[in-house]
Amino acid sequence: MTKDNANQTEPILFYEFDAALGAVTAEVDRVLSTSPALIRGYMSHLALAKGKFIRAASLLACAQNGDDLIHPDAVRFAAAVELLHLATLVHDDVIDDADIRRGVATLQKKYGRRTAVICGDFLLCAALKTAASVPNKTDYSEFTLPNYISRVCLGELDQHINNRNLDLTVYHYLKIIGGKTAALFEGSFYAGAVLCTGDEHCRRRFARLGRYIGMIFQLTDDCIDFEMDENAAKKPVQSDFEQGVITLPLIHALRGEAALRQKAEEGGITREEINRAVRRTGGLIFAGTISKRYYGKAERLMNELELSQAKRERLSAILDKAYYGLKK
Amino acid sequence: MTKDNANQTEPILFYEFDAALGAVTAEVDRVLSTSPALIRGYMSHLALAKGKFIRAASLLACAQNGDDLIHPDAVRFAAAVELLHLATLVHDDVIDDADIRRGVATLQKKYGRRTAVICGDFLLCAALKTAASVPNKTDYSEFTLPNYISRVCLGELDQHINNRNLDLTVYHYLKIIGGKTAALFEGSFYAGAVLCTGDEHCRRRFARLGRYIGMIFQLTDDCIDFEMDENAAKKPVQSDFEQGVITLPLIHALRGEAALRQKAEEGGITREEINRAVRRTGGLIFAGTISKRYYGKAERLMNELELSQAKRERLSAILDKAYYGLKK
Repeated sequence: MTKDNANQTEPILFYEFDAALGAVTAEVDRVLSTSPALIRGYMSHLALAKGKFIRAASLLACAQNGDDLIHPDAVRFAAAVELLHLATLVHDDVIDDADIRRGVATLQKKYGRRTAVICGDFLLCAALKTAASVPNKTDYSEFTLPNYISRVCLGELDQHINNRNLDLTVYHYLKIIGGKTAALFEGSFYAGAVLCTGDEHCRRRFARLGRYIGMIFQLTDDCIDFEMDENAAKKPVQSDFEQGVITLPLIHALRGEAALRQKAEEGGITREEINRAVRRTGGLIFAGTISKRYYGKAERLMNELELSQAKRERLSAILDKAYYGLKK
Repeated sequence: MTKDNANQTEPILFYEFDAALGAVTAEVDRVLSTSPALIRGYMSHLALAKGKFIRAASLLACAQNGDDLIHPDAVRFAAAVELLHLATLVHDDVIDDADIRRGVATLQKKYGRRTAVICGDFLLCAALKTAASVPNKTDYSEFTLPNYISRVCLGELDQHINNRNLDLTVYHYLKIIGGKTAALFEGSFYAGAVLCTGDEHCRRRFARLGRYIGMIFQLTDDCIDFEMDENAAKKPVQSDFEQGVITLPLIHALRGEAALRQKAEEGGITREEINRAVRRTGGLIFAGTISKRYYGKAERLMNELELSQAKRERLSAILDKAYYGLKK
């Protein structure tokens, strides 16, 4: 019996959702902790600050089959997506000169920019290797992770080019977050759908659902930036505004108050003044309205997809998490 | 007739070597010049400073079949390898804070660090997408480009960790360049071999040949750093030594002269003093001896491989280019 035949006759051990999510965490830990000795210290430092694995959970939820079970390849892909997300965070921190991420010192703060650039590249490779390690590669030949990563890059670049651009439009802002955040959600949903259906049209719908949820996720995150203080958000010390990142609530405030725009242009405006202006002009409510629109689209799309009760509940919970914010 | 059948019956248009290399240049240009508008300006800037495509030429040479013709997939892979190499250069320049590369201002000098980090990531994705665009992916399922990239990362990291390490050993230096330079040559040779033979043992031999040639290439480059002035080398303004990169000729000089080592430790040693010490102690001859050893190994390996006359000549020319340096 050849190796290929042996593979074909081995039974596939499907997972239930919680077990699958546990397996993803274990797989990410395994990749980080078994990396070559030279880089392991840096990788272990990253492992200290776990994310909430919403992209992994999304991928697994989409992968649930008719019996609500999950193919083991989904675990591999979900780990790849989380590693990829980690890679983008490491490079983001270099780009933003950030000190703290998820409550822990960033790689670039602790070990310097050079190390962080290289570790980000290494993680990107680790993610792609993890994705490429699924046994039946041919089944997923249409799922090309770098497609989504390059869209994330373009979103990041667009954001950077529009740093401190007080004339940024709502449309342009949505385009930026559609790349930097929503593209990876879209990829996660698509990759999950590949494992539950062979119908490309249906997979594309899952991908679209992922895009909506990714947009909502970023809109919520951008609102939180105006609401929380540093400790509560466990985010970099500087707010978006201090970094020159113009987000939707501020766009709304700038459109509403000519005096604010004038002052922002001249510089010297404080974070507190910005926060007050956003509250005064209803910037958060405006962002909430846009978010609610995506929420409605996501709900309608879920109704169109033929989902089991369990799968619908799972995806609804993810949608709600994105909409109402992630609680620790 | 299904699309798959149509693909199978279409004749494959093989290339002769020069035509294939021309096609690689065209493909790299195509990828750079058709990138999204947002990033195209940066990509076009990179296209100004063409490399010498030694990795592409290596891949194509290895791919030559019994009739000395080259499968079109080799062109795609070779373009991917050159894009990948370009991506590593862009991130290298961020890491080294370099101003000039191939006679042209670096991306990070011209557009800033943020842009360069993102553009490097984008290029990495573009390379992987190009590699993944070959029609029959399954044929190359054993060729995983990220494996080689992560070895490049580890070599870079090791070099960075050993920045200004005056105790760096010859062995450790060889290990570093084995990652940062030789890994991508190894990958290029392996990818080429995949297209000319199904025998994994033979492919591995080609990969080993690539490793030797990569080592020689870097050793030659490191020697040139002590010989050339800035304009002639078209390299960053700072020499390796000024960047804290300890290379083989200097390792030899430091081992030979306790006074030099002492002075280097105290700092304040000039580039000219270093260059003189390297010449005085025969550092370049020493590096040449090590390089010659790899040259001999490469020649023996080429004799073991059953190569056509044309293929042998092509590979010998690449070996000689690596050994004697690339002339413009």
